[in-house]
Amino acid sequence: MSAQAGSRDDTFEDDRLVAAAWSRLAEPGDDVAGRLVRRLGADAALRWVLAADGPPEHRERAVRALAERTGEDGRTALAAMTRALGRWAARIDGLDPARDLRWLEAMGGTLLVPGGHGWPAGLDALGDACPFALWARGQDLESGLPRLERSVALVGARASTDYGQNVAADMACGLAERDFAVVSGGAYGIDAAAHRGALAGRGHTVVLLAGGVDRPYPAGNARLFAGVLDGGGVVASEVPPGSVPSRNRFLSRNRLIAALGSATVVVEAAWRSGALSTATHAAELLRPVGAVPGPVTSMASAGCHRLLREGRAVCVTDAAEAAELAGRPGCDLVNEPVGRVEAHDDLGEAARRVYDALPLRSWASIESVARAAGLGPPEVLGALGELELRQLARYEARGWQRRKAEPRAPTR
Amino acid sequence: MSAQAGSRDDTFEDDRLVAAAWSRLAEPGDDVAGRLVRRLGADAALRWVLAADGPPEHRERAVRALAERTGEDGRTALAAMTRALGRWAARIDGLDPARDLRWLEAMGGTLLVPGGHGWPAGLDALGDACPFALWARGQDLESGLPRLERSVALVGARASTDYGQNVAADMACGLAERDFAVVSGGAYGIDAAAHRGALAGRGHTVVLLAGGVDRPYPAGNARLFAGVLDGGGVVASEVPPGSVPSRNRFLSRNRLIAALGSATVVVEAAWRSGALSTATHAAELLRPVGAVPGPVTSMASAGCHRLLREGRAVCVTDAAEAAELAGRPGCDLVNEPVGRVEAHDDLGEAARRVYDALPLRSWASIESVARAAGLGPPEVLGALGELELRQLARYEARGWQRRKAEPRAPTR
Repeated sequence: MSAQAGSRDDTFEDDRLVAAAWSRLAEPGDDVAGRLVRRLGADAALRWVLAADGPPEHRERAVRALAERTGEDGRTALAAMTRALGRWAARIDGLDPARDLRWLEAMGGTLLVPGGHGWPAGLDALGDACPFALWARGQDLESGLPRLERSVALVGARASTDYGQNVAADMACGLAERDFAVVSGGAYGIDAAAHRGALAGRGHTVVLLAGGVDRPYPAGNARLFAGVLDGGGVVASEVPPGSVPSRNRFLSRNRLIAALGSATVVVEAAWRSGALSTATHAAELLRPVGAVPGPVTSMASAGCHRLLREGRAVCVTDAAEAAELAGRPGCDLVNEPVGRVEAHDDLGEAARRVYDALPLRSWASIESVARAAGLGPPEVLGALGELELRQLARYEARGWQRRKAEPRAPTR
Repeated sequence: MSAQAGSRDDTFEDDRLVAAAWSRLAEPGDDVAGRLVRRLGADAALRWVLAADGPPEHRERAVRALAERTGEDGRTALAAMTRALGRWAARIDGLDPARDLRWLEAMGGTLLVPGGHGWPAGLDALGDACPFALWARGQDLESGLPRLERSVALVGARASTDYGQNVAADMACGLAERDFAVVSGGAYGIDAAAHRGALAGRGHTVVLLAGGVDRPYPAGNARLFAGVLDGGGVVASEVPPGSVPSRNRFLSRNRLIAALGSATVVVEAAWRSGALSTATHAAELLRPVGAVPGPVTSMASAGCHRLLREGRAVCVTDAAEAAELAGRPGCDLVNEPVGRVEAHDDLGEAARRVYDALPLRSWASIESVARAAGLGPPEVLGALGELELRQLARYEARGWQRRKAEPRAPTR
């Protein structure tokens, strides 16, 4: 650790410096680091790593001493820890969390740390894969990531269609109007449409980047991210400023999106798509997963149909259904759409058959109605009485005839 | 029963005459008739009805006598039987099964009767709602309804879209090529597309009409039905020639479609659609149900999405998946589509991270690769060895660089 960060002792007085250091040392999702931090505490774990750094024999001694302390003395655990120490050590040179924090603050950002003020509780479900910190930019971050108790992770393919983008934007807008935050990855395609839709609905949206928050990725969405910040949203990452968005970080980042959403909805995804990994993470966290269907002729929907087919996702077709998935049980329920209500909709079986058997232009005897309806004359008589009362049948000397009733307005 | 049918005694020597009489007397799905036929046999049940016909007191005596014989003496059962007798009696006048059969035979048709030659076993699952007979037209009916052990009921909305019709036709064609018969209702829209697709695939298709087989309904599909007969298919109905296709018969007919298919697949259906009743019948028969998704913006797919959402159907996107649903367990399985295979697809975690961390144009030291990949130098060395062997990395004095490999051809 460089001198700018102060002496080793005062470095660790600040939880935020320790968290910043860990998020620089360990790659996202490094669960050896996660376990060590959970066992010893981030501060002691970092001290141990810095002290253990040295020539191979020194590291091995440190690992064995640690194993005695923690009881984790299996061969595999020892080997994993030795390897982990090797990879963290490769990054100790140049480690300077204070500089990283200054950099973040210069951009108006804030570091959120586990259990600290504003930390989104959803991330704790990740256990050993919980991020060490969130590097977040946003206007209103003193209260942390806003309103994430009500949130939907809305994700999908970069190679999306107009259909998918429209559906994603509509759904995000509808979720925003229902007071749900929309979490996504800021990529082209579905992610961008989701963020845009949430902004259109004047809702909160959170962009989870795979690289540092100082480098908008993809660059073409830089204006979108600026719009998110202007709209009161948040742009966040678990890796420090300056970090490149590598493939590994994209995949790891998906677990955060899943953990920040009360539910995950996939809008369009090819048969093999990163969005499916977000769905898998959500399922592992026991969060509901939804998939939006599309034309079976569209390869951009193949991944969604795969999720549905394998029973890994619920079919979700609009914001109301997405809200039901993510909302509190018993609240946020979908109202079923009600079609045109026909005047004869609530007739009983016999009355309905008689209604169908009545001629529209000619006149019929009770006997002929009975034959046509396949009912006995007494049932036909009863049904005709009901139909006449409801102005669905009329009687003259010539016989019975159907009356056309006006359809009633839908009740929804 | 009129004199043309011969005397009452010789009428009943022929199972086909009895079945024909029952299908004229009772409306489709009349399960009081079904129960009576199953208890007494079709012949004895018909004799009983003819003998019981008369003035009200005579009918009541007959019903009580029957109840003593069958042990069904509850008030409700007696009342139901009396009512049923009333409705059957309304049709005894003019009953002439021999004339109906001559009419059918003049059209080149055949009457199939339960348990008789060529009777499709799938219908027996309907229990008391099993039809009394099938009035069938087709070139090759001496062997009955062809190959219905392998069959899919492919149904959907009349108000269908081009998308739905194309999907239905493609799916039916693919099913025909896989040697599945395609059963549907001959309606405009999805039904017609399904029959057409099956014909295009030179497969068997069965049109189940709600009215008599002498009256093509809808009339606009008359040429299609003629094409079905020319192509070796079957046009069938449970109601005798001359019967009109009433609403009740449409709904009852749907249970036959469901019972004739090893599985039912709904291609397009509005939120309220007759096709959903076919799906419900299939589910009641414990047959698999599939639904084809579509754009969530299309009301023509709302019913399919409803089935998926309520967990009442499996998502089906092509003929292979429909065949898997209807096929024998373990056979007819879908091959998963395989996308483009990248040269680095099967790399382990470490090798993949190193591959991603390697520069494409500049050269990197092992230490800098380790920092970028978040791995220790020994793991990086091992990974580089593997990558070099697979020609995914190259080494020079300046350091390491990524090599672009050609993607391999997909393996499917």
